[in-house]
Amino acid sequence: MRAVVYHGRGEKALEEVPEPTIRDSTDAIVKVDTATICGTDLHILRGDVPAVTRGRILGHEAVGTVTETGPGVRGLAPGDRVLISCISACGRCSFCRTSEYSQCLGGGGWLLGHRIDGVQAEYVRVPFADTSTHKVPEGWSDEQVVYLADILPTGYEVGVLKGQVRPGDVVVVIGAGPIGLSVILGARLYSPRTVIAVDPVPSRREFASRFGADRAVAPEDAQAAVDEATAGLGADVCVEAVGIPATFEQATALVRPGGHVANVGVHGEPSTLHLETLWSKNVTITTGLVDTNTIPTLMKAIEGGQLDPTRFTTHRFGFDEAMQAYDTFARAGETNALKVLLTTDA
Amino acid sequence: MRAVVYHGRGEKALEEVPEPTIRDSTDAIVKVDTATICGTDLHILRGDVPAVTRGRILGHEAVGTVTETGPGVRGLAPGDRVLISCISACGRCSFCRTSEYSQCLGGGGWLLGHRIDGVQAEYVRVPFADTSTHKVPEGWSDEQVVYLADILPTGYEVGVLKGQVRPGDVVVVIGAGPIGLSVILGARLYSPRTVIAVDPVPSRREFASRFGADRAVAPEDAQAAVDEATAGLGADVCVEAVGIPATFEQATALVRPGGHVANVGVHGEPSTLHLETLWSKNVTITTGLVDTNTIPTLMKAIEGGQLDPTRFTTHRFGFDEAMQAYDTFARAGETNALKVLLTTDA
Repeated sequence: MRAVVYHGRGEKALEEVPEPTIRDSTDAIVKVDTATICGTDLHILRGDVPAVTRGRILGHEAVGTVTETGPGVRGLAPGDRVLISCISACGRCSFCRTSEYSQCLGGGGWLLGHRIDGVQAEYVRVPFADTSTHKVPEGWSDEQVVYLADILPTGYEVGVLKGQVRPGDVVVVIGAGPIGLSVILGARLYSPRTVIAVDPVPSRREFASRFGADRAVAPEDAQAAVDEATAGLGADVCVEAVGIPATFEQATALVRPGGHVANVGVHGEPSTLHLETLWSKNVTITTGLVDTNTIPTLMKAIEGGQLDPTRFTTHRFGFDEAMQAYDTFARAGETNALKVLLTTDA
Repeated sequence: MRAVVYHGRGEKALEEVPEPTIRDSTDAIVKVDTATICGTDLHILRGDVPAVTRGRILGHEAVGTVTETGPGVRGLAPGDRVLISCISACGRCSFCRTSEYSQCLGGGGWLLGHRIDGVQAEYVRVPFADTSTHKVPEGWSDEQVVYLADILPTGYEVGVLKGQVRPGDVVVVIGAGPIGLSVILGARLYSPRTVIAVDPVPSRREFASRFGADRAVAPEDAQAAVDEATAGLGADVCVEAVGIPATFEQATALVRPGGHVANVGVHGEPSTLHLETLWSKNVTITTGLVDTNTIPTLMKAIEGGQLDPTRFTTHRFGFDEAMQAYDTFARAGETNALKVLLTTDA
């Protein structure tokens, strides 16, 4: 079959590889119908994620059709259309029992396109298939569900829920890439008073406004925007969706006493925490990898029309154009790409 | 009257000063019966709290008797015995309406011995008296209530409640001074599995054990103790009760995925936050100045016998021995002082 294979820093190729086979009784083999490329895949290609070794098939966001199941799989059968969660969950450890799937101790967690072969391929082996996939509701398109694999629950769980957005809040979202936009969409579900997006790139601020930000400002204008919206008190919730020290420190500077800072960004180095001012401010700072335990909730919101994920799609490619898709996504500054869809032929 | 007056870095004196008078209609004048010295007073004397200016009367922990009330005071009358909270609360601003008194926007917050004259005096002016004092229950000694002014609610609110201690938890308390010991007492109310106290000073580890720690270890032995108690997973809750970068960073290193770090310590400089490892660990980090909104709860626990605060008292002095009391408290390493009581003559 064809797959996008990582060959070390900066190197990838669309090439022929052997098809996956069942290894554990709880595995399923899924034919990938639609996959996407994530910003994290670009991080991997920059060599930032050392757990990804040469020869690894990339990708962790996909919708597909089950072709084979191991003898331990109870709830899936060949022909079922499934959303594959970016997080695999054993379903039995202490973390899985409390829906903290990202911290699975039973061999799950973020595996696909990371510690095992991923979904940018014609077929993928999905471990713990019963508890790591969701059946696609009848009549739904792949595009309606594929963003539930990672970016929508990431923005919702790690940004909106951990940040505890409440009605009437002033919410700052730092970084208006796909994850920041997911945070904006998720925050809107909780009726905030004002959502302020912060991004240095004008085209991203434009996207932020289209996705529901009331204001979209450059980083140097963020303090004034927050002061204006809060009479100088500070934002109720600040969500960091970039992953560098400067943006994290800005989030902690913009939050009000008693407010919440939710870090969503993937960081490669330490930040400075200004405890000399924060110690007495009653702030709460959270971090998190997505658990994807809100996929059922978000599916209901999509079904009810409270959430439209298809607006993320800016480009579509056939699977044999995967390298072109990567190039389009990597040059988002020029191409204005948000999410690119890779569709295998029927 | 006599009062302990701050005269700049390292300088204080017990001296004659004018008695306070009613300034605002919601003020009360309280004759101080029993006061204590807080570690924060020593910080002030080191010059660490620049808001405290020369000539300021120190102290923010006391029990006394009302001698005069302004015309706007409704619930107090001369002769009432009251606990004076370290936090003054206007009772009307948005923060006070949600019991976040420490962040009062109406002129309250930490005032006594900080921005206005404090309680280490024969008399004190207490602003917003109705919402900044609690009547002492009939038959209670001063010593039973005075620690409710600051240290008991600080350990309970900022350490135990913000840290979300639950039954069966492994709780690490870094720093076994009076605040750390308050955290241990408060954590015990929630039936943890193991409380591990961390302090470099052997006599403080001895106190920690007496106050309810299951283990008391030196900082260099903390990782091994936590690993042993949690099979290498990390502590459910880590409370920082020191206020320096090394102890904060240790707290974030010892916490388990999905766990809580509650910062109680007063910090004078920034810390490093290792987001390169913490970003995916689903941790929650909290900071806070005490709101003292749990004084009624803690009073019930004292009345019911679930909490005995009198064990904090190691030394007692008359008010004219205040300088000796400070000296005893400041040399706690030699004197084994935890809390020193200052009692004015009847």
